[in-house]
Amino acid sequence: MRLSEGVEWGLHCAAVLAFVPEGKGLPATKLAEYHGVPGAYLAKSLQSLSRARIVEALPGRNGGYRLARPADEITVLDVVEALDGAEPAFRCTEIRRRAPFKIPKSDFQIPCSIHTVMDRADAAWRAELRTVSIADILGMFVQHVSPETITKGAHWLEEALP
Amino acid sequence: MRLSEGVEWGLHCAAVLAFVPEGKGLPATKLAEYHGVPGAYLAKSLQSLSRARIVEALPGRNGGYRLARPADEITVLDVVEALDGAEPAFRCTEIRRRAPFKIPKSDFQIPCSIHTVMDRADAAWRAELRTVSIADILGMFVQHVSPETITKGAHWLEEALP
Repeated sequence: MRLSEGVEWGLHCAAVLAFVPEGKGLPATKLAEYHGVPGAYLAKSLQSLSRARIVEALPGRNGGYRLARPADEITVLDVVEALDGAEPAFRCTEIRRRAPFKIPKSDFQIPCSIHTVMDRADAAWRAELRTVSIADILGMFVQHVSPETITKGAHWLEEALP
Repeated sequence: MRLSEGVEWGLHCAAVLAFVPEGKGLPATKLAEYHGVPGAYLAKSLQSLSRARIVEALPGRNGGYRLARPADEITVLDVVEALDGAEPAFRCTEIRRRAPFKIPKSDFQIPCSIHTVMDRADAAWRAELRTVSIADILGMFVQHVSPETITKGAHWLEEALP
């Protein structure tokens, strides 16, 4: 089981975009440059984030991407599901119905125990990602990173904004 | 993100094998027949379960598969990891290191916040699957299924055992 690479990029993009000031947008090319990822592939991820109203594109020559909502109203799960889908990792194909003898239909009214257990784990995974917002990620980041890096990052952003 | 199909098959096989009496083994062909799945593909899953000491093959003409350990000593996670690997769904490629300015090495001694959050969710998923054994799955199953189905299943197994 593996999440698509776009999830890592999307989460890092959301974190960077949280620093973009009101009324401004950061061009997709700058986001690609910052993360050292191919622009064409990143553009697809940004489109998915846009459809999920996590980012929005300001149009025009001086336009670019920004968060569509405040960073504390975007959960890590929002970003993950926008990029990787909301379907559970385990897909039950109801193989219990294929037993080589006739089983009364009423036996299938209760979900398969295996399906239930796998769904419970999926819910625990999503619950964990739902408790953390992009603002929380920034909080963790700012706590650990040196003031020097924050200054450099702020300087880079200032130059990168149109 | 999606678990391989073999996970569903493997969990159902482990549940069926828990009913195999001491000293007996169920042929792989019978397991495939029971679940209506292609024998060649199921054989690969059974080999993975065997390597993880979840099932064992009794050799000989009257041989077949059985659980290698008591059903209450095999967790759902054991089966899932045997078939899908134990690697986390999120792989951090440390894209934070690619920023277009020099970052002091000491900033990277603390794991990336995004990585930390994703790992926490992965741990919650695995923790959930670790609390449930194959014996628990049987317990849930027996509680919900009609006595008629249990009788038919037992009869099928009796005929299927060499």
